[in-house]
Amino acid sequence: MDYKIAVIKGDGIGPEVVDSALEILDAVGAKYGHRFHYTEVLAGGCAYDDCENPLPKETLDVCKASDAVVLGAVGGPKWDDLPGEKRPEAALLGLRKELGLFANLRPAILFGALKDACPLKPEIIKDGLDICVVRELTGGIYFGDRGFKDTDMGPAAYDIEIYAEKEVERIAKVAFDMAMKREKKVMSVDKANILESSRLWRKTVEKVAKDYHEVSLDHMYVDNASMQLIRDPKQFDVIVTTNMFGDILSDEASMITGSIGMLPSASLGGDNKGMYEPVHGSAPDIAGQGKANPLATILSMAMMLKYSFGLGEESDCIEEAVTKALDAGYRTGDIANEGEKVISTAEMTAAVKSYL
Amino acid sequence: MDYKIAVIKGDGIGPEVVDSALEILDAVGAKYGHRFHYTEVLAGGCAYDDCENPLPKETLDVCKASDAVVLGAVGGPKWDDLPGEKRPEAALLGLRKELGLFANLRPAILFGALKDACPLKPEIIKDGLDICVVRELTGGIYFGDRGFKDTDMGPAAYDIEIYAEKEVERIAKVAFDMAMKREKKVMSVDKANILESSRLWRKTVEKVAKDYHEVSLDHMYVDNASMQLIRDPKQFDVIVTTNMFGDILSDEASMITGSIGMLPSASLGGDNKGMYEPVHGSAPDIAGQGKANPLATILSMAMMLKYSFGLGEESDCIEEAVTKALDAGYRTGDIANEGEKVISTAEMTAAVKSYL
Ligand SMILES: CC(C)[C@H](C(=O)O)[C@@H](O)C(=O)O
Ligand SMILES: CC(C)[C@H](C(=O)O)[C@@H](O)C(=O)O
Repeated sequence: MDYKIAVIKGDGIGPEVVDSALEILDAVGAKYGHRFHYTEVLAGGCAYDDCENPLPKETLDVCKASDAVVLGAVGGPKWDDLPGEKRPEAALLGLRKELGLFANLRPAILFGALKDACPLKPEIIKDGLDICVVRELTGGIYFGDRGFKDTDMGPAAYDIEIYAEKEVERIAKVAFDMAMKREKKVMSVDKANILESSRLWRKTVEKVAKDYHEVSLDHMYVDNASMQLIRDPKQFDVIVTTNMFGDILSDEASMITGSIGMLPSASLGGDNKGMYEPVHGSAPDIAGQGKANPLATILSMAMMLKYSFGLGEESDCIEEAVTKALDAGYRTGDIANEGEKVISTAEMTAAVKSYL
Repeated sequence: MDYKIAVIKGDGIGPEVVDSALEILDAVGAKYGHRFHYTEVLAGGCAYDDCENPLPKETLDVCKASDAVVLGAVGGPKWDDLPGEKRPEAALLGLRKELGLFANLRPAILFGALKDACPLKPEIIKDGLDICVVRELTGGIYFGDRGFKDTDMGPAAYDIEIYAEKEVERIAKVAFDMAMKREKKVMSVDKANILESSRLWRKTVEKVAKDYHEVSLDHMYVDNASMQLIRDPKQFDVIVTTNMFGDILSDEASMITGSIGMLPSASLGGDNKGMYEPVHGSAPDIAGQGKANPLATILSMAMMLKYSFGLGEESDCIEEAVTKALDAGYRTGDIANEGEKVISTAEMTAAVKSYL
């Protein structure tokens, strides 16, 4: 089969990790007889530098006309003083909204070979960790109205957290479908003791649950969830939550694995179109030095094969190759222990390729 | 001196831990020549049971007429199905708002004797932890308008996050004043890359910082803060943040100490009036059995002596007595390791008293 992929390398280490990931993708294509057609477009700081717009119309058009989007990373101190709509992050929000990518899947997995990097004690982690955070990505306070207002207390600024039933319904379905392929447990996180939008969230998730008799559903307040992720992360299978709470909790869940340089993500819409990117940032301090860890982006390609193209075997093949490279001791700087040999981005790519 | 204290024992283990704390307070009073006059009033589930109102007017009146309020804990499964304004939690929100308690101080401290309970690896914690989270408590999305609305996507519910400059100014001052007595470092946490209210927050905190040349100020996005608390909690001294982010991060900070049964809190207003309560909940499962750990409530009394009454020496005396009791090996069930002798609430109280 032929697949059209929009490629946004972005800023910092983005280009390096994307190049590495596409090399792996091509190797998988050669092995299984698929052809991936790449169209490179600009977004983020580099797009701003090029045309003063972090998300040019051409970029959006190409992404809309593609089967999937690969994104490296955007942002860096260079663009930190720009106004909101010019900043690299604006490209992310624009892509999510314009492509309708309402479901952000963030697996928090502990790789056996990297267990030592986990900041939590071994008694807590035991034989590993495998949580999938499903974050709503095109609603809530990220996209509600915002502005300024005069109040009793003087000038004020506001942002509106808002959720429609339909928005909650569709993200809940993603979470339950995901749970059906896993441990069949969904934890919905909200702040229903305070927020009206959370009460609507909870009620709607309960309604969706009726169609999934095999999945057990529980609810947790967000403050408690932030504690439980540390106290006993193994209690979680799928966590589903709002855009804002998901931003916080998915990063917390990533950090408890200790290997944020390893974690992929997928942002999905109603059809199979998706955007795939590593969880880590643009790491400007090591950009262009061939030091970056490409594994999170490579694993994002595995998610793309699975979720956008339905190629389960090809996806597994990448994941297994990454595991084997780690088990064989290959380490970029970010995941190396003291005394371990540190290899380059290119060497790690070659290692993974050799195990495909 | 004479002090008037409103006492809200509340639900679950609330009465037991408050009784213990008042016993310690009386002992300190006897030692230093102060007299504490208690007026017991109802709030929370027990108030609802009594008069179908979780926060009766009489309770508010007594609290307003007192120099400080002691609160045990409110809530429990018994009242979980009541509508929002009848629920025990509504009493907390009402007390905070009506008493003008805009600053919630939540120290996250690791007690030397309880180091083993910390869920983070010893390399991360090293010689201990001492973070103070300063959470805004009477503004933001907790108290903004909320309701229902018809949208393009159908029926929706919303909540408004709103902050006035003056609200940010006064909580920022609390944080900087606190930092002056500590390591002189403030980390302000927001989501200024997305929220208008966070941009106002950041700008206002910057303005307040100009009056505190000795204090260093940094900003962090909330998603990053939730990671950094796990990766390297020792980088923090004072964290100041909004009501909603503070709810999440203060609980996360408590959990990384591993001893949530030990942590006190203070909620302060513009004058010296304050409400003092343990961070832990009402623990209905062990209520009435004399098993509860009273130390968080006892330590809350130390905060009261310091912040509401300006009695530093008396406050230190309590903190030292608690440390000595722990060092001597006294343990309630929640903080006992396997094989350690478990004592009752009353025995722990007696132990602390013996070290005053
Ligand atoms: C960069 C920022 C706008 C973004 C977000 O808050 O969604 C990021 O934190 C993320 O999680 O992808
Ligand atoms: C019970 C709840 C309303 C409350 C809050 O969210 O403020 C609690 O979580 C707290 O932190 O004191």
